[in-house]
Amino acid sequence: MTDAIDLDLHALVFDVFGTVVDWRSGVIRDVTEFARKHALKDIDPAAFADTWRGHYSPSMEEVRSGRRPFTRLDVLHRESLEKTLTTFGVPIASLPEQALTELNLTWHRLDPWADSVPGLSRLKSRYIIAPLSNGNIRLMLDMAKRAGLPWDAILGAETAQAYKPAPQAYLRTADILNLSPEQICMVAAHNSDLAAARLCGLRTAFIPRPTEHGDQQTKDLKPEQNWDVIATDMNDLAQQLGCTQN
Amino acid sequence: MTDAIDLDLHALVFDVFGTVVDWRSGVIRDVTEFARKHALKDIDPAAFADTWRGHYSPSMEEVRSGRRPFTRLDVLHRESLEKTLTTFGVPIASLPEQALTELNLTWHRLDPWADSVPGLSRLKSRYIIAPLSNGNIRLMLDMAKRAGLPWDAILGAETAQAYKPAPQAYLRTADILNLSPEQICMVAAHNSDLAAARLCGLRTAFIPRPTEHGDQQTKDLKPEQNWDVIATDMNDLAQQLGCTQN
Repeated sequence: MTDAIDLDLHALVFDVFGTVVDWRSGVIRDVTEFARKHALKDIDPAAFADTWRGHYSPSMEEVRSGRRPFTRLDVLHRESLEKTLTTFGVPIASLPEQALTELNLTWHRLDPWADSVPGLSRLKSRYIIAPLSNGNIRLMLDMAKRAGLPWDAILGAETAQAYKPAPQAYLRTADILNLSPEQICMVAAHNSDLAAARLCGLRTAFIPRPTEHGDQQTKDLKPEQNWDVIATDMNDLAQQLGCTQN
Repeated sequence: MTDAIDLDLHALVFDVFGTVVDWRSGVIRDVTEFARKHALKDIDPAAFADTWRGHYSPSMEEVRSGRRPFTRLDVLHRESLEKTLTTFGVPIASLPEQALTELNLTWHRLDPWADSVPGLSRLKSRYIIAPLSNGNIRLMLDMAKRAGLPWDAILGAETAQAYKPAPQAYLRTADILNLSPEQICMVAAHNSDLAAARLCGLRTAFIPRPTEHGDQQTKDLKPEQNWDVIATDMNDLAQQLGCTQN
């Protein structure tokens, strides 16, 4: 039994891919079905998922650098999907457009980690909770509706018109919430996200997700700074922040 | 028992002040307490509420006309509050800043009409539901959290960076939802809001709120066009759109 940590927080904002949902298992599930349906026998779904996700940060870097105007993640995911199919030797023109559109929506259909919904529900009883994800609004909305994620609002890159870890993503979110950065806690399984949030003045909470990248994961297994809260999962975070059991 | 109307809708977006919540009663309630606390004996709370709300559309018109950059409603409400106090002969400098800030938050604490929460909950089971209000995100968030409004996301003027009835408010909301306008239904108690939405291609649903402006209300008592749906309240709307009882 830990005493509640008192940080005078008003809101918690969350990384989502990896922290709230298990993106890799969800993408593997849908790529498996896609490959079966279209008789793509040489595709290893896990390798495909990792390659697709490998384009994630570089695709946003085009926007962060100013080389490209803000473009929502659904569009970047689709471009990355086409690159991935090419890498795996699949001619894009051989596939129906509808099948590509449908596969791209896998990111809207990711399952939460088991502790996410109960933990978020507890946190919601005391704090404003919202995603601060690079996923676009419709993506986050579909995901929340399917999985029962009880967000108070959907914030993030599209609302802020900036991709994390750009400071504007954190600072504009604070401005929209009419809170000062230190009244907000960024929750993430990624040390780099927390480091960027801390530089903007937000409080930070780390939750390790040691299988986000599969059983060979090497990074983000441990907190790399003295984050304000270090929790084992979302329920432990709720407990440490004084949220009673539902 | 009406047959369900089939419009191939994916999302319903809602006017909020007047349509989902009873702004006038809520503002009267808080102005009454404010006047009592600060011994402002000459203030008629209903007249004060109507005067304050009277500044609403003109304040947004400054933004719609391009004379002023987009400014969120909390700021406009505060400016309108000061004008209203002046009209009622109350020197603003005589009041503590904290009291003004607190009174301005009355718009975050409005109660829903009795049918709003059950009706929205039914509609949510089948459609995406979101406010398309001129209220800013934090205002809508606080209101929803307090009243239990089960929005899937908080959309509206701040997200679209445009105030209704400017077409951008409707069209950018459709774009964010990745839907075509005809896949979305605007729900409002105000014929003018529906007229603007219809011009943008959205479907329209009218719900009369005959006491929004008190018992002397003269406008919006009836539908003024052949809106796609005309419902008696939010539960009737859910019924007409094929949403089963909770």
